[in-house]
Amino acid sequence: MATPRDRARRVQTRLEELALVSEEESVLTRTYGSAALRDALRLTASWAADAGLAVQFDAIGNLRARTRGNARQRLLLGSHLDTVRNAGRFDGALGVLVALDCIAARGPLRKAELELIGFCDEEGVRFHTTYLGSRAVAGTFDPGDLALRDAAGIALGEAIRANGGDPRQLDTCIVPRDGLLGYLEVHLEQGPVLEAAGEPLGIVSAIAGQTRIAVEFIGRAGHAGTTPMSMRRDALTAAAEFVLAAESSARMQSGIVATVGEIEVRSAASNVIPGRVALTVDVRSGQDAARRVAAGTLEHLARSIATRRSLQIEWRVVMETPAARCDPNLCAAFMRAVEAADGNPLPVPSGAGHDAAAFIAAGIPAAMLFVRCRAGVSHHPDEFVALEDIEAAIAVLDGVLREIA
Amino acid sequence: MATPRDRARRVQTRLEELALVSEEESVLTRTYGSAALRDALRLTASWAADAGLAVQFDAIGNLRARTRGNARQRLLLGSHLDTVRNAGRFDGALGVLVALDCIAARGPLRKAELELIGFCDEEGVRFHTTYLGSRAVAGTFDPGDLALRDAAGIALGEAIRANGGDPRQLDTCIVPRDGLLGYLEVHLEQGPVLEAAGEPLGIVSAIAGQTRIAVEFIGRAGHAGTTPMSMRRDALTAAAEFVLAAESSARMQSGIVATVGEIEVRSAASNVIPGRVALTVDVRSGQDAARRVAAGTLEHLARSIATRRSLQIEWRVVMETPAARCDPNLCAAFMRAVEAADGNPLPVPSGAGHDAAAFIAAGIPAAMLFVRCRAGVSHHPDEFVALEDIEAAIAVLDGVLREIA
Repeated sequence: MATPRDRARRVQTRLEELALVSEEESVLTRTYGSAALRDALRLTASWAADAGLAVQFDAIGNLRARTRGNARQRLLLGSHLDTVRNAGRFDGALGVLVALDCIAARGPLRKAELELIGFCDEEGVRFHTTYLGSRAVAGTFDPGDLALRDAAGIALGEAIRANGGDPRQLDTCIVPRDGLLGYLEVHLEQGPVLEAAGEPLGIVSAIAGQTRIAVEFIGRAGHAGTTPMSMRRDALTAAAEFVLAAESSARMQSGIVATVGEIEVRSAASNVIPGRVALTVDVRSGQDAARRVAAGTLEHLARSIATRRSLQIEWRVVMETPAARCDPNLCAAFMRAVEAADGNPLPVPSGAGHDAAAFIAAGIPAAMLFVRCRAGVSHHPDEFVALEDIEAAIAVLDGVLREIA
Repeated sequence: MATPRDRARRVQTRLEELALVSEEESVLTRTYGSAALRDALRLTASWAADAGLAVQFDAIGNLRARTRGNARQRLLLGSHLDTVRNAGRFDGALGVLVALDCIAARGPLRKAELELIGFCDEEGVRFHTTYLGSRAVAGTFDPGDLALRDAAGIALGEAIRANGGDPRQLDTCIVPRDGLLGYLEVHLEQGPVLEAAGEPLGIVSAIAGQTRIAVEFIGRAGHAGTTPMSMRRDALTAAAEFVLAAESSARMQSGIVATVGEIEVRSAASNVIPGRVALTVDVRSGQDAARRVAAGTLEHLARSIATRRSLQIEWRVVMETPAARCDPNLCAAFMRAVEAADGNPLPVPSGAGHDAAAFIAAGIPAAMLFVRCRAGVSHHPDEFVALEDIEAAIAVLDGVLREIA
């Protein structure tokens, strides 16, 4: 029998193996439809088969691996195996491998069948989508998305076919609701809160809702040497005022974050006063009402800045997703398992989106266990989770499975 | 005998003809070494030959066209025939064609020989240089620049040879100082000051000195959803503070302009807190001391912002050129000629650099006449100078030539 430390080491070793399966040399990138992603799914499938699970790939390309039993109930566990470009090795894969290890360790004395899912597209790098894999399983895949095209002009429908799937058979991915206990996901936190709190684990209370806005300030380009300060209509100084207004307005409200992540001066040159500046704002909150108020405040601020500076402004809400509350009963099971392992059950919000959100949106109970990461770094090769924290996550998921499945 | 209006129309027609000579389809671009620039120089040479001037091309590729006489004195007139990418039709060409027209009109009763120069590289688009053509004539060409390479890796020395010139013979471009009265240049203002003042013409008092600075704010990238506002080290919000500080500090000092023209978030994504932001600052003033103080103030502000926000900063002065004062006697001649034409002799600073600056830096007297342009627009296809204003410039340059040459 493997010790808890042995099991954490096995997860760690498999994470290292998966990190070598990439579509780019020397950095980790696995996007939907790539040979690397298929290889990663197959490698994980081989481990699942070794653990005695019945393995298949569904019509969109998710790995589905089930215990071989006849229990009337079913519990889903998983996370995603695709990555962002130049990714870290823990994002997604950690949750899949911890779940596999705990399913393998659960043994035959179960109340429910356990199904491991390795989702094929959570990050949406290729088609700028969210949760392609988990929406197919939750039954909320939008067939209109099949027409979305990647940067090379390939439609999602074609990509599904090229990936060995079948875009006309996506309904076969849907998990039956009958006897479905819910969905559990282990994921690294991707933020600094657990580290700051000195806790290895957190229980996600809700996945934040998000508003993504594209803003453009339109002033007048001009020569940097010949246009007096008083005659300028500089789009960048207006944008700078807005960046600071977004920061201070989010700082004043707890539970709200606002980020300007991209900014571009159109036709920029060091000796030209910026005439047009485009930027993106990302606003998130666990509370939908607070997020909507915050986004409205930002729009008001942006329009005031533009008016005062005689600029024009374009304000376009690009994406809006509601907050997803995790299932209270599944959360409580996580809390009890953390306490049983002598831990401190800390509820934390998730600022990032996760596959669990697709299940919650479909009315399927879901809960998440966050694992501390170093310095809040994620989506970067420096992403790191300590062996002891993997071990703690395994112990807690073991405890939850013992209780509910 | 052509009427003043006829002469302005001829300049306008020739500007239109030159605007069709481009290295790019449908937009005007003529960079050093291009067939288009050679064609433009040859076309202008043909007009100069038609006017009876002795025409040649010097070792770097400038058009040199002289009156055929034996006067002991010489006065240079000209501007540049290269352009930025997607240029307007007046920048440079206007000054060459007005000068050609006035030289042609001057007739043989002269005190001095008149030399028209069409400079082959003022904009520095290809090698990121300033005043290649006029520095060769003024005798301040730096032979070290021959090793500069363009984006395709071609060295300036090779480009001069490919252009039909001779990089080892650049000394032959130098204008003899003996009997040299100076250099006169007509140029569109490229700014909004004359239009705001309701004046067609301005007499340049000095060409502003310039400091160009590259700044980088280095914070810490992070996930836009998972990093609380209080735990961020956002490089873009710091940069935004600096952009506003640069604007307000320049607004508080008369005679100073400061512009952040370029800003780039490294590895930007809408859902990532910017970890590194690079920007450029362009500071100009007719007063070198004031410009140095302003640049020092900006550095102090940038460092304070970085320190307060726990960021690092890199501050690098990329380029620094002193202000160039126009020759008081030549300016006075322009003033008298403006008054003689019933105009208002308005001294204006030049925020942009011009070939005249290369002569001033070499100790050769130089002066410039600015012509009003529409809405301050330059370096853009919308660049526009009205026919009446071209006519006014011709009348004033005629007057100056009558007085001093």
